[in-house]
Amino acid sequence: YNRTFWDSKLERQQVAAQFVWPADGRVQPAQDSKQLLNHAVATGKKVFFVFRTHTCGELRAVHIGQEVTLCGWVQYRRQDLFIVLRDFDGLIQIILPQEETAAQLKKILCDISLESVITVTGTVISRPSGQANPNMVTGEIEVRVQSAEVLNSSRKLPFETKELVKKSEALRMRYRYLDLRSSQLQYNLRLRSRMVMRMREYLCNLHGFVDVETPTLFKRTPGGAKEFVVPSREPGKFYSLPQSPQQFKQLLMVGGLDRYFQVARCYRDEGSKPDRQPEFTQIDIEMSFVNQASIQKLIEGLIEYSWPEEKGTITLPFPSITYAEAMGSYGVDKPDTRFGMKITDVSEVFRDADVSFLRDALGQPCGVVRSISVPKGNQYIFTIEDWFFIVTVINPCQQDVTFVTLQPDGTWKSVLTKLLTDGEKSELCRAAGARVGDVLILTAGDPNTANAALGKLRLECATILESKGVALRDHNAFNFLWVVDFPLFLPKEGNPEELESAHHPFTAPHPEDAYLMCTEPQKVRSQHYDLVLNGNEIGGGSIRIHDMELQHYVLETVLKEDTGLLLHLLEALDSGAPPHGGIALGLDRLIALTVGASSIRDVIAFPKSFRGRDLMSNAPDLVSPEELSTYHIQVSQPAGSGEDTTQS
Amino acid sequence: YNRTFWDSKLERQQVAAQFVWPADGRVQPAQDSKQLLNHAVATGKKVFFVFRTHTCGELRAVHIGQEVTLCGWVQYRRQDLFIVLRDFDGLIQIILPQEETAAQLKKILCDISLESVITVTGTVISRPSGQANPNMVTGEIEVRVQSAEVLNSSRKLPFETKELVKKSEALRMRYRYLDLRSSQLQYNLRLRSRMVMRMREYLCNLHGFVDVETPTLFKRTPGGAKEFVVPSREPGKFYSLPQSPQQFKQLLMVGGLDRYFQVARCYRDEGSKPDRQPEFTQIDIEMSFVNQASIQKLIEGLIEYSWPEEKGTITLPFPSITYAEAMGSYGVDKPDTRFGMKITDVSEVFRDADVSFLRDALGQPCGVVRSISVPKGNQYIFTIEDWFFIVTVINPCQQDVTFVTLQPDGTWKSVLTKLLTDGEKSELCRAAGARVGDVLILTAGDPNTANAALGKLRLECATILESKGVALRDHNAFNFLWVVDFPLFLPKEGNPEELESAHHPFTAPHPEDAYLMCTEPQKVRSQHYDLVLNGNEIGGGSIRIHDMELQHYVLETVLKEDTGLLLHLLEALDSGAPPHGGIALGLDRLIALTVGASSIRDVIAFPKSFRGRDLMSNAPDLVSPEELSTYHIQVSQPAGSGEDTTQS
Repeated sequence: YNRTFWDSKLERQQVAAQFVWPADGRVQPAQDSKQLLNHAVATGKKVFFVFRTHTCGELRAVHIGQEVTLCGWVQYRRQDLFIVLRDFDGLIQIILPQEETAAQLKKILCDISLESVITVTGTVISRPSGQANPNMVTGEIEVRVQSAEVLNSSRKLPFETKELVKKSEALRMRYRYLDLRSSQLQYNLRLRSRMVMRMREYLCNLHGFVDVETPTLFKRTPGGAKEFVVPSREPGKFYSLPQSPQQFKQLLMVGGLDRYFQVARCYRDEGSKPDRQPEFTQIDIEMSFVNQASIQKLIEGLIEYSWPEEKGTITLPFPSITYAEAMGSYGVDKPDTRFGMKITDVSEVFRDADVSFLRDALGQPCGVVRSISVPKGNQYIFTIEDWFFIVTVINPCQQDVTFVTLQPDGTWKSVLTKLLTDGEKSELCRAAGARVGDVLILTAGDPNTANAALGKLRLECATILESKGVALRDHNAFNFLWVVDFPLFLPKEGNPEELESAHHPFTAPHPEDAYLMCTEPQKVRSQHYDLVLNGNEIGGGSIRIHDMELQHYVLETVLKEDTGLLLHLLEALDSGAPPHGGIALGLDRLIALTVGASSIRDVIAFPKSFRGRDLMSNAPDLVSPEELSTYHIQVSQPAGSGEDTTQS
Repeated sequence: YNRTFWDSKLERQQVAAQFVWPADGRVQPAQDSKQLLNHAVATGKKVFFVFRTHTCGELRAVHIGQEVTLCGWVQYRRQDLFIVLRDFDGLIQIILPQEETAAQLKKILCDISLESVITVTGTVISRPSGQANPNMVTGEIEVRVQSAEVLNSSRKLPFETKELVKKSEALRMRYRYLDLRSSQLQYNLRLRSRMVMRMREYLCNLHGFVDVETPTLFKRTPGGAKEFVVPSREPGKFYSLPQSPQQFKQLLMVGGLDRYFQVARCYRDEGSKPDRQPEFTQIDIEMSFVNQASIQKLIEGLIEYSWPEEKGTITLPFPSITYAEAMGSYGVDKPDTRFGMKITDVSEVFRDADVSFLRDALGQPCGVVRSISVPKGNQYIFTIEDWFFIVTVINPCQQDVTFVTLQPDGTWKSVLTKLLTDGEKSELCRAAGARVGDVLILTAGDPNTANAALGKLRLECATILESKGVALRDHNAFNFLWVVDFPLFLPKEGNPEELESAHHPFTAPHPEDAYLMCTEPQKVRSQHYDLVLNGNEIGGGSIRIHDMELQHYVLETVLKEDTGLLLHLLEALDSGAPPHGGIALGLDRLIALTVGASSIRDVIAFPKSFRGRDLMSNAPDLVSPEELSTYHIQVSQPAGSGEDTTQS
């Protein structure tokens, strides 16, 4: 332990404290905060309250001749000639002094390790003729250092910072504080902050929404299998971390708040689902005296208002399709509309054709034959590897598919070639919209299964085509899409005789279908709506049930739930609940799609790994039995389990 | 179950949906969102996206003659003549039609229960001459109803809404959604939202702070006895809900984020401490390349910028006193400076006086005699009840006190009367600043104990005086105060030979005391600072240790902590950590003091009770052993414990 080492550092801190106000006299400590604010706005707000006079990234030719003080990290050093200094705002080249009189200063700067933190004072000068770097926004100038100080030296890092991006994600998460220094993560987090701020301005300042914080220590919801539990000091009693503020936002409407929003932390324990985080953030919105179209308009305005300029223009209104159309044309309720390859119904072609296995399928109740046409499929698709992918994709559907390759010479390669007449062949191509060079994929069965299989194949074939260089989707396009008219109830998984809510039990039925609620609830559409971006669900909401009797009927008679657990909500609905509805946007996903990140982990400062672990601090971790006894719980090790601390 | 009942309601919803856009033609659905935004800004943004054309509270004489559509709650009905309709924005009087042709409309409005939700369309008219209500902002006008619709009827509530405020707090929390309709809670929550929005504008838009969300499922901190645990699916492994984002914000600085803020949800399990909530919110701020004075300036500007106009002007800069001064003059580290009654040292008076018990105390090492002078104490204080209070207050200090009543006739009532000479008496009055009519309270012992006892008595006497009508503190004053130069370490509770951090182990030592770190760490002051408002701590922060070796020394050598648990932080400090510091403001407390609420529960939408219960939903609650088995835990009932579900 080296005492003088940090004693001298403490002294430096003391000295550095005198640099708080910019040395160029622009701001005096005696000025009051109003003046400071005006000044901050006028000058670009980057220098306030800190040692530096400028950020590294803001210097330009206009600053030539000025004396500046900068703070930052040593990004790069070339021999004994210059250092590249980095801060959050960018890079700047620092020229080391070559005079004999500055030998000590030069030595300090030459000895310092990369990623050490220094402050330098010097003069902005023009780079010598012909040496400007057009790839660097500060490339016209450099700073000739006059004095410098090492604020903190860095150990030799286990890898170079700029290499970290190429390292495994586990290593990046273990050293997340180094990963955060990358320009990509800096950009992602700053863009996130900026977009959220714009959303707040739109909701709070322009539309009178009230930002209300709701509790995260709450009661377990009926059937809340994915809710984390939090033991309390009352024996056997647990809080639950809610999956969304759904109940609270409805209660706020009953309480007359009129317009609520919150950037809400939510929790979902899904074990190890890929690209899910145990905690996530949603833009949570609820309004009274409103209908579906109004909420959609509000959200379109919200996205437009918060959309970053550098990502192009958003066109309003967003297109809208029904759930039935989405399933029929794309085989999925969150279609990627950046490309075609829609599902088409070709049942009529095969109704009388001599293809027994397809005719048999059509003979079943609701039986259909449907297809997608893969453009240029003959040229680009269907290597052995492609087959392997495709089989993997459709396997979960247990669905047989038939292929027709429309070869350039006009002939077919398919088991159907000899079974169809020429007229039937051209009729099939017409119905399916297939052209020479395409591959036609057909499947038969009930519509839901056929659509689901073709929907997955559509996406898989798009990925394969793109991997082979076909320009199919515009990766700079942002295709927002509303999906509406979802079913209110779905057959329960595992027990299809019973119904469960397609979304949640508070969703209001579609007014046109209300007459079916008592007789055929499975046919009732809901007032639920999803917002989809490039094939990803980024939001969902609904008009809620505001009538106590209807809510009670749905819970007790349709869903067979124990209404006692939601008694407070039923009582609230019966106490003057206004008509209301809302929406929640998945912020992590929206930002990831906006910046083009492949994972939401790239837009979260400290994400968890696949298995829900924090690889930096090694959470979750063991807790002593004594500490657990406060909460009246003990660990029950599962039989045959071993310790498992290394995997992530 | 009455089918037609809600079927007809659903139809009404459908009808109501056509009211979405204001009927007065000001806005057409075809307009794009940019136009809407401009319009929203121009018109005051209260009518958008909803059925209504105006809010109840915004109508004035200028609207006379206009047809308006309003939505709201039936607040009050007088015979068959009028209804008072309420929404979040205020109250408006609705005149019922008396014509025979409108008999059905009249009947609907006469039959409706209080707190039902209705929409009415009618014409704004002037109130008859002499009938204007000057106590109502809409009191010059009323609305003559032309059509109306019941959107939702309310059951007969267990109490009248306006009476709820007089009910027990338990009842208010059980029916929180009704309590939220009160104008006071509406004001509190809206002011909170407004102030937080202004803070965000100041930090984000004016000063370049980045809003970063940090995880709440984290690793247990060493000695984190007040952290809730969250079982994970890994047997025996637990997350912890952090008490603050302290580690994360420092890691963000190491990651080069430069300026971080977050309106952060924090968790603290303190059992049943009064006026604490298991979850609370802090404005969390951290900056790089900064010193203490800069952060204080930043925060002063933040408070000024976000301060609500209706609460008067804030004067900057805030006064600042050292911890030592605060303890010496007020006996507490969060002084209420709205009144005097400061502690004075009167040791010199008694050094030679013939008062043996005081002279003996002065003979002890560090022994002192100190006093406070209670103005008008002779007139207003010291009934039997006052004595009881005072004894209760000082009892925890185990401190004897002596009283001197300076009676109007110039005589003393005190055990000291006969022990002091006239000269000593007047010297005591001079030293203590006591006047005729005051009561002087004296105590002797070591300075810490004496100050602590007098500090408590000072506050208690102020409360007693105010309860008797003496105007002591200005309850419209907002006395902000910095307390600085706290000790870095304190003797450990229960083991005074060892040291513990006065705040947390990441606090940097005061540069002037750095030389004492190895020799006399107990004498080192810190770079910690507290922000105090009217005697309440509303924030605290510090310059942090950015040097790995110093941090390691503090943790291992001074505090005897297991550094292994903070290895990730030590590694981060050794990887190029910039000098940094920050602060956290307790938002709940700040808002409560701003609005003058007696409890933070009045500025939280859904607070927990004293015992941490949600009285509306009855959380925490039992969870089945099957559900707990996912998390490999089981409940261990404490011996002799019974069920306890009713208390709160």
